[in-house]
Amino acid sequence: MNETIIKKMQEILGEAWVVTDLEKVKSYCEDQTEKAMKPKVCTDCVVVKPSTTEEISEIMKYANENKLTVIARGGGTSISGAAVAIMPSIIISMERMNNIIEVDETSLTVECEAGVTLLQLVELFNKHDNLYFPIHPGDEGAQVGGLVVMNAGGVRAVRYGVMRDQIKELEVVLPSGEVIKLGKNLIKNNAGLDLKNLIIGSEGILGIVTKATLSIKPKDKHIGSLVSSFDNESDAVKAVTEIFKAGIKPLAIEYMEKEAILKASNDIGLTWPSNDGAVDLYFIVSERKEDDLYEMYETIVGICEGNNALNSFVAESSKDQRTLLDIRSHVYPSIHDEVVDAIDAAIPIKNLSKYMENIAKISVKYNVEISTIGHIGDGNLHNSILTNGAVKPNNYEAIADEIFSLVIECEGSITGEHGIGKVRNKKMNLQFSEAELHLMREIKKVFDPNNILNPGTAL
Amino acid sequence: MNETIIKKMQEILGEAWVVTDLEKVKSYCEDQTEKAMKPKVCTDCVVVKPSTTEEISEIMKYANENKLTVIARGGGTSISGAAVAIMPSIIISMERMNNIIEVDETSLTVECEAGVTLLQLVELFNKHDNLYFPIHPGDEGAQVGGLVVMNAGGVRAVRYGVMRDQIKELEVVLPSGEVIKLGKNLIKNNAGLDLKNLIIGSEGILGIVTKATLSIKPKDKHIGSLVSSFDNESDAVKAVTEIFKAGIKPLAIEYMEKEAILKASNDIGLTWPSNDGAVDLYFIVSERKEDDLYEMYETIVGICEGNNALNSFVAESSKDQRTLLDIRSHVYPSIHDEVVDAIDAAIPIKNLSKYMENIAKISVKYNVEISTIGHIGDGNLHNSILTNGAVKPNNYEAIADEIFSLVIECEGSITGEHGIGKVRNKKMNLQFSEAELHLMREIKKVFDPNNILNPGTAL
Repeated sequence: MNETIIKKMQEILGEAWVVTDLEKVKSYCEDQTEKAMKPKVCTDCVVVKPSTTEEISEIMKYANENKLTVIARGGGTSISGAAVAIMPSIIISMERMNNIIEVDETSLTVECEAGVTLLQLVELFNKHDNLYFPIHPGDEGAQVGGLVVMNAGGVRAVRYGVMRDQIKELEVVLPSGEVIKLGKNLIKNNAGLDLKNLIIGSEGILGIVTKATLSIKPKDKHIGSLVSSFDNESDAVKAVTEIFKAGIKPLAIEYMEKEAILKASNDIGLTWPSNDGAVDLYFIVSERKEDDLYEMYETIVGICEGNNALNSFVAESSKDQRTLLDIRSHVYPSIHDEVVDAIDAAIPIKNLSKYMENIAKISVKYNVEISTIGHIGDGNLHNSILTNGAVKPNNYEAIADEIFSLVIECEGSITGEHGIGKVRNKKMNLQFSEAELHLMREIKKVFDPNNILNPGTAL
Repeated sequence: MNETIIKKMQEILGEAWVVTDLEKVKSYCEDQTEKAMKPKVCTDCVVVKPSTTEEISEIMKYANENKLTVIARGGGTSISGAAVAIMPSIIISMERMNNIIEVDETSLTVECEAGVTLLQLVELFNKHDNLYFPIHPGDEGAQVGGLVVMNAGGVRAVRYGVMRDQIKELEVVLPSGEVIKLGKNLIKNNAGLDLKNLIIGSEGILGIVTKATLSIKPKDKHIGSLVSSFDNESDAVKAVTEIFKAGIKPLAIEYMEKEAILKASNDIGLTWPSNDGAVDLYFIVSERKEDDLYEMYETIVGICEGNNALNSFVAESSKDQRTLLDIRSHVYPSIHDEVVDAIDAAIPIKNLSKYMENIAKISVKYNVEISTIGHIGDGNLHNSILTNGAVKPNNYEAIADEIFSLVIECEGSITGEHGIGKVRNKKMNLQFSEAELHLMREIKKVFDPNNILNPGTAL
């Protein structure tokens, strides 16, 4: 990395907050993308650690004038290569901007700097009697800025939606260095074009999020879990659609292939409540009143049985609930080392059965294991292509491409949670027309005419 | 209107669907904006009535090549001048594109052409056992395309949010004539920049919405209403914030000055349940179970009484509920002829008391009556400046400006529902910085480089 740039960074931030040591820099150049998918990493970078919006503004002004590549980096938990450096870059680590500014119990919001981690939010609200932040995409090292620009999802989207649905206000530094404040702490706001939603999910290519005001929710006092086993995915899908039609919104509805869930439970020495059938639905439910929780169990079990569930298990004790959650959380880690490509398509619920049937056919056609688990309540399934089949490495892309074609045929999105990042941008034309891509590219130019922010990502 | 243009329109649509008769054209050049606020109308227009997306695409291609002004027009129910023609224009009336394409009971969506009226949706779901479309901004002549681009709100935003929160997919004709399809019928979709939310609330300046897929909701079986009276607005606001903190989401929470509600009830010969106090809260609640409804009444009354409510009245019978709704619906009509300016700011709930106190001061300062009613549950109040004070017409703008400054000071939005239209665009710089306005203007150019779509609106 050019000495002049380093000097300028030291001038803005002080020497202590400019990292040039290669070993240290390296860890900031990567994220958690699977090895087989990860783009080629460039480590000719400088890592800077600002503590204020003003410092970021100064960095951006300098970078923009000199057309230098900048990547804003949160917890580095992306698995789509969004935070990977692929060319010499100034990497802005947000780690020092980790102040929770205000919990507003009247507006039911929390205002954070962008470097606040999900763990900080979880711990803060664990101490709180009756409020919490509902979004939980998994890795608690994720930071608020990353959660915003990657529009994080997770298991609780069924009831609460995704990150986009929680964001009231954003402070953003533009590539020009200008600071803008988007959104209001309101349900209704009809002034001007919606720039806030443009930033959400933009994967760090339009501006750097420095602060966010997020919705928090009243905690339900009564919480429980429920597992129902089915012989086939078609019955499970039917049960889910009937549950929605009944006006019921569990916190989460997860779908798991029996093989995957039993492997995970064996791996960590815990017992899953049912060995029957081929697939399980795992519900997490919560209610303000205990009676409602019981009624919810009854309704869900009734609907599952009406759709040929083999058996259902209600986990009432905290211990039993914890066991289910621990096993579910271990499903991905238990296959992790074998994953070649982790596809996270989202499919409209009416086409889920068709999608699953065809995934099975692709698995047979290529003689490859495709593990399917995921958030069926929001149509977001994780299809992991595994290495333990007879498939050769150069087949992987053909398999993924066939899955993506199927996604489009089923009117789905090629990514429900992980984002396009640097691993799926060549697939954008599967989902978008040339006119749509043109609009996106031109909007990128409006925000970032010199293309300095996270190039090679999203578009 | 130029003969060549008319000929071309007839060529595309057939003569029957091109209106040039001045009397007929006139009614399409205006909307429902208050007389005192309405921009100067231009009637040198041609009205065209396409029945397909392809026809609109052809019209747009021709208009774009020849730099002709186009206004897409729905039900004409805007009260911010959004649909008013202010220069010679091709007015595209969407009235023939009024097909409800599909109710999908699995995905819980309804797909409509843009000319479908709110009345059509209400009537469709009145016949339906257990599903309905929750958004109801008032005038049932409003069309889906208008509801989308104006991001309509209404009383039920407390529980269901606004139009933006219901829109899954949009079909849009760009000024170039290209047709794009935005969004997916999904909870999670993280591919690409969010163009869908850019179109929502764009007031018809980026593209013409031709189709929309909207969320529908399960109907609650049990519904009721409740009125609580207070001596002052500060207690009423406190009650509302406590209700939210308790995790309760009524369908609607309306705020009304006693004087206004009694005037309305007198006008239509119905009796409002309470003459006490200075302000009322009017709740509409609905639940799946009857017991929950009673518990809801109890909790709300308890919280209101804990905040000094003078009395509370529960309307259980359909007749009593209808009476409350009829009186509430008549509040605006009862003052309509006296309204000089209808401000519909939205204020964060924590600043509502401060806002209301200062509105009272402005009323005294200018010796003008300002009627305040509105959707307090979402912070969206309607402050109508009335003519019956001693104020002179040339004062109105000063009063409105003082209210707008107060809105900004209270971190609110200058419009919660009505939009900027052609009546508030000079106020945009109160709410947005030059950098933000620059981004909006440049985005407008990306979509509409020749500025042919509804110029003078929104920005």
